[in-house]
Amino acid sequence: MTEPSDAPSATAADMAAPDRVPNRTAAFAALANLLGDRFSRAAGDRGQHGRNESYFPPILPEAVAWPETTAEVSRIIAICAAHALPVTAWAAGTSLEGHALAVEGGLSLDMTRMDKVLEVHPEDMLVVVQPGITREALNAQLRDTGLFFPIDPGANATLGGMAATRASGTTAVRYGTMRDNVLATEAVLADGRVIRTGSRARKSSAGYDLTGLFVGSEGTLGIVTELTLRLHGQPEAISAATCAFHDFARAVETVIATIQMGIPVARIEFLDEDVAAAFNAGSGADMPELPHLMVEFHGTPAGVKEQAERFGEIVAEMGGAHFTWADRPEDRNRLWKMRHGAYHACLGLRPGAMGVVTDICVPISRLAEAVAETRADIAAQGLVGPIIGHVGDGNFHALLLVDPNSPDEVQKAKWVAARMAARAHRLGGTMTGEHGVGMGKRHLMADEHGPAWQVMGAIKAALDPAGILNPGKVVPGPDSDALLRETRA
Amino acid sequence: MTEPSDAPSATAADMAAPDRVPNRTAAFAALANLLGDRFSRAAGDRGQHGRNESYFPPILPEAVAWPETTAEVSRIIAICAAHALPVTAWAAGTSLEGHALAVEGGLSLDMTRMDKVLEVHPEDMLVVVQPGITREALNAQLRDTGLFFPIDPGANATLGGMAATRASGTTAVRYGTMRDNVLATEAVLADGRVIRTGSRARKSSAGYDLTGLFVGSEGTLGIVTELTLRLHGQPEAISAATCAFHDFARAVETVIATIQMGIPVARIEFLDEDVAAAFNAGSGADMPELPHLMVEFHGTPAGVKEQAERFGEIVAEMGGAHFTWADRPEDRNRLWKMRHGAYHACLGLRPGAMGVVTDICVPISRLAEAVAETRADIAAQGLVGPIIGHVGDGNFHALLLVDPNSPDEVQKAKWVAARMAARAHRLGGTMTGEHGVGMGKRHLMADEHGPAWQVMGAIKAALDPAGILNPGKVVPGPDSDALLRETRA
Repeated sequence: MTEPSDAPSATAADMAAPDRVPNRTAAFAALANLLGDRFSRAAGDRGQHGRNESYFPPILPEAVAWPETTAEVSRIIAICAAHALPVTAWAAGTSLEGHALAVEGGLSLDMTRMDKVLEVHPEDMLVVVQPGITREALNAQLRDTGLFFPIDPGANATLGGMAATRASGTTAVRYGTMRDNVLATEAVLADGRVIRTGSRARKSSAGYDLTGLFVGSEGTLGIVTELTLRLHGQPEAISAATCAFHDFARAVETVIATIQMGIPVARIEFLDEDVAAAFNAGSGADMPELPHLMVEFHGTPAGVKEQAERFGEIVAEMGGAHFTWADRPEDRNRLWKMRHGAYHACLGLRPGAMGVVTDICVPISRLAEAVAETRADIAAQGLVGPIIGHVGDGNFHALLLVDPNSPDEVQKAKWVAARMAARAHRLGGTMTGEHGVGMGKRHLMADEHGPAWQVMGAIKAALDPAGILNPGKVVPGPDSDALLRETRA
Repeated sequence: MTEPSDAPSATAADMAAPDRVPNRTAAFAALANLLGDRFSRAAGDRGQHGRNESYFPPILPEAVAWPETTAEVSRIIAICAAHALPVTAWAAGTSLEGHALAVEGGLSLDMTRMDKVLEVHPEDMLVVVQPGITREALNAQLRDTGLFFPIDPGANATLGGMAATRASGTTAVRYGTMRDNVLATEAVLADGRVIRTGSRARKSSAGYDLTGLFVGSEGTLGIVTELTLRLHGQPEAISAATCAFHDFARAVETVIATIQMGIPVARIEFLDEDVAAAFNAGSGADMPELPHLMVEFHGTPAGVKEQAERFGEIVAEMGGAHFTWADRPEDRNRLWKMRHGAYHACLGLRPGAMGVVTDICVPISRLAEAVAETRADIAAQGLVGPIIGHVGDGNFHALLLVDPNSPDEVQKAKWVAARMAARAHRLGGTMTGEHGVGMGKRHLMADEHGPAWQVMGAIKAALDPAGILNPGKVVPGPDSDALLRETRA
């Protein structure tokens, strides 16, 4: 291990004269010289950076770098630019769509050593962090401030990865997504320049919203090296509950009514009878094997009481039952830990199966229809596909459990997933509410955006003309026509 | 008046072979042919589109067009592109920074005939509108739905203009800004292509946030022809109040404490003793001539009561007095009408004076310091400069009242404004919280954004390579160096 580099940001010499022909030897030599043993081409390191939680087969990068400062990231990118070496950021590896896989080879830029809280400003309810910090580590460090960072995608992802995919999760219905909670960034551009976007003010009208552009850009426009995040007050009172419904449609209608009545739920999650069974089998739960809602209320003691009463009235009208409150912190923690373990619990419904995860989001009024049609498709294909979702946002997932050795089952799962995306579009929604595009959804971008996808391509070309930043992701490329043909075939 | 055009969107012929040399004669002939008497070069029409509420001298466009459909906008832009004719959107003319003035000549695109509500979806709490509708007209049409569009910049601006400047105003502390409330757009690009951004889903991770990029782009990246907006439930209960403080700092500290305690105020406005005097003189108020806060709470009856009690406790601790509640709708309306009339009431403090409006936004913890230093600067220059602001966001305005015939006073006002912008930057904030860049703040963009301003320029060049959309605004241009020299002199 070499000592942390105090190297300045990229110099003119770093940026000079990009090769037209990629020169791996020269690039790797320069990186090794800069980073010492924080640069590796070892098979083990490459293997660790070649697979994540998605169902894509491993794709190994050619090399791995572990920067420790923004200045190092700047110099690394400048070296990559000079030698046309692709560079793809990596952190917790929790992506479900293969975002961080280096599909065109090159360098995996492991951001996990840049994991510091740089500044906490409780009086302004914001924090400045490096991108490699995980959300659990961040909240552990914030505990004594009375504040917390609410975005909760389930996995213990890094903030950088969450920003890159515009992550959200169980609490977005109340606190918004990463789009709403990143105030400012520092980012390294494709030529090594370091920029800052946004400010510490809560709002601004000073030109294009570059912060918003970087959030959700999946590392294709720049490498975010610092994030300024909005914090929220830890609620004075919290109350959580589960309730069951004999008919999934009544559960969904309960959600719709709750949102339309303006009850400010902090979480409202749907899970179907398969997920309840998975929790019973895998998480030690004792739930009726019926569709459920899991809710949480945040506020003052009086406010939480009022919210809970109003919600309870809706549930009663809809014929809900088995109302179970979890008011003690340990009970709530158990509840949400179980919820966050849903992916693994559901995999347990069919040992050895591979999970194909879907992620559509529709206008709330179309939610019942979207879930019903999806259930019908899953049943018609004879698949096991538990459904779970952040239904307050109209967002839900089917986890399609298929035998990875059965091309027929894999094909059926892909058919269901493609139908779900098309359904989301027909209903005015989106094919991905929170997981992002990555490798899994790029072929659907033209369907979702039409000619606006080309606009994304123009922005990419303007900011990364050589296409070194996470190539093969998000925007159209030489492979786009083939991708689209494959989908529509 | 010709009948509304059913012309299709721009054709290949429209888009063909842009002139290298602008050909006004051909462009105007094509526009007249397309629009009939909805195209004008008359002096009266040009004059009406050459001045707005900003303090800039009139700048007349060369011609005015009144499109009625997206297809017409597309054909107009294609004609402008083919003949290198600048095109600047126009609507209510309420900009305070000269956004809609055609500083490089060309066409003023008057969007006021595209003022329809296209679709209302109360069940999804959203509405689809054309950009020329005003916020008051929109809320009048929504009244019976139980929903409303909360963003309230004071002026009866159009939604298109509000989106273009990323407007906010008194309610942003609770409901966010235009950034948070535009879900989707339809926009015409610089070559006449029509795109759609976003969807009706409440969130998405499907690639770059083009909706967020268009919001705040001041008509420099495309002409927005349709907006999908988030609506909010009309609160069950509303309560408003004013209270006075003997010391402006205690008023500001009350705001800081209110925000930090997480009281979900719907509005919290600061006004200083000069504004109170202006309200007494010009709006028939009977207020002590002291610094004031004006607040409003939205929620359930019990929630509003609890918020008001908590706020009242803070006010009492801070030594506030003259607490006056306005619970009846007519009293609240009078209160906010007065607040919205503050600009004109303050102009009345010095008849014949010109108002130079400033608009900084700082982290909330730095608000008292920012206001105090600004007051000291105004006093040191011997100016009258009432201060008023959306202080829950850390955003405030000084309205510097100067004799337009006194170069000395104008110079002093510019000095105060420049110091305010520099102060905002020093305190981690922004030089414009809500008014936008326009003509008035472009020379400060490099100070605010550093090299990120060049990134905005690269995006502009990618989407509008010929620079026909609102040229001379937002991004760097041939005049940037001169602009910056002027500022720093």
